[in-house]
Amino acid sequence: METIRSLKRMQKRAFRHKREGSVIGFVPTMGFLHEGHLSLMKLARKRCDVLVASIFVNPTQFGSNEDLCTYPRDFTRDESFCEKANVDIIFYPEFESMYTDDASVWVNEEALSGGLCGASRPDHFRGVCTVVTKLFNLVQPDLAVFGEKDAQQLRIIERMVRDLDFPVEIVRGSIVREPDGLAMSSRNKYLSATQRKEALCLRRSLDKVVEQFKEGERDATVLRQVVVDLIASVPSAELDYAEVVDDGSLAEVEKIEGDVLMALAVKFGAVRLIDNTILYP
Amino acid sequence: METIRSLKRMQKRAFRHKREGSVIGFVPTMGFLHEGHLSLMKLARKRCDVLVASIFVNPTQFGSNEDLCTYPRDFTRDESFCEKANVDIIFYPEFESMYTDDASVWVNEEALSGGLCGASRPDHFRGVCTVVTKLFNLVQPDLAVFGEKDAQQLRIIERMVRDLDFPVEIVRGSIVREPDGLAMSSRNKYLSATQRKEALCLRRSLDKVVEQFKEGERDATVLRQVVVDLIASVPSAELDYAEVVDDGSLAEVEKIEGDVLMALAVKFGAVRLIDNTILYP
Repeated sequence: METIRSLKRMQKRAFRHKREGSVIGFVPTMGFLHEGHLSLMKLARKRCDVLVASIFVNPTQFGSNEDLCTYPRDFTRDESFCEKANVDIIFYPEFESMYTDDASVWVNEEALSGGLCGASRPDHFRGVCTVVTKLFNLVQPDLAVFGEKDAQQLRIIERMVRDLDFPVEIVRGSIVREPDGLAMSSRNKYLSATQRKEALCLRRSLDKVVEQFKEGERDATVLRQVVVDLIASVPSAELDYAEVVDDGSLAEVEKIEGDVLMALAVKFGAVRLIDNTILYP
Repeated sequence: METIRSLKRMQKRAFRHKREGSVIGFVPTMGFLHEGHLSLMKLARKRCDVLVASIFVNPTQFGSNEDLCTYPRDFTRDESFCEKANVDIIFYPEFESMYTDDASVWVNEEALSGGLCGASRPDHFRGVCTVVTKLFNLVQPDLAVFGEKDAQQLRIIERMVRDLDFPVEIVRGSIVREPDGLAMSSRNKYLSATQRKEALCLRRSLDKVVEQFKEGERDATVLRQVVVDLIASVPSAELDYAEVVDDGSLAEVEKIEGDVLMALAVKFGAVRLIDNTILYP
């Protein structure tokens, strides 16, 4: 396993592998890795010759009021995770090298980005699309794995690849959960003991929605209210959003007819957690 | 020479050439080729193994009040031009295949795009950046040649390549002129005989600016006024803009100290022509 910090060196290396006919698999991350990332890496590993994982806490996807500075970082720990996952190259760009002061070109998704997380994080997906474009150009992957926990991000990246003709296959990685059901996230470590326990309300409310959906409930307002009520009953939790949206367009639906995404975001103090499930009629 | 219309087939073909270690040179065009394009192709030809020229009248770079429908098209003529330039592949995508109805991802340059042509063509460079990103992803060029006549476009593409880390070298192709000095353009064919003659005012005003600059004039307002006065004296010409801008930031300058770009756009009825020169102190 090798760590590459220089952008130019990463790109040169990628082209060498391409010329040799190697399939490059890619897992972009913001570091502070957990079992969720590991499962994405394992998924990529099976499908590629050269596995690249990037670690970069991307400043352009954080709002000015968000947790860029406190976002957890631990490269030594991340390294051993990557070793376990049989990663070939950790791409760990120097913070300063990714954006110049006069950077002025942005990749913007304009249809799927407004709702859900985008409603409270206005420039978030512009930052995500831009950094993923840069990483794709630097790593030259044949396939890239993104986790389903970030449901909106996943669909926006799929749309970006389609609309801009990136020669990259996007592979969806399932949500990995703690034994008690909490979706894994680098931000979980900031929960207090009480918040950690109460954070189970995300998964519990989704389970309840799935249950009612299986019993035949197709009214999105009713299903949404299940989440609203359950989260309201949890002292340390504050609902950011709970939405039932079309799985393709991410537009709100009233009556569930096609596949829909039920997604929610909940704040515990300064920590914001997300979770989701797909409902297939 | 081969013509490829399918996006997927172009991309597959490009990757085959990359695996074989071939250098791919690229000249993107909107067709209705002239000697200007030919010179870009010749420049690329010298530097590559496989020369791809694209012909696509990109709808997203035209405003709703602009000449998308009347933009000249003649594929048979273009084919013979490409043959002359020793092009290997004409990439001539089906009009409908480049953008879906729900396309929602755009590449936007936000610092260099507001002035000059961008002032009267608000979404023009967003369309240019987006289509060039798509073409780069489809053609996978090692180098791409853009003409200096479109000075602002050239600088925006260079910025895009820098900011998004495209693995493409941008090569600048000099302006090619008719024997009398008019910069070649597909739109020249729409000039009436009188307009065609009077269109020499673009080049003449630039010559006058260069002359005064060589004599020591460094006041941008004075040089700009030279153009304004000369264009005002031409009956069929209407000045769109004449600007003296920093060659890097494209910001207006008052006193000329570093390299500046003197650029102008002039309308002859519905036909809008551009020209420019760089002044090196």
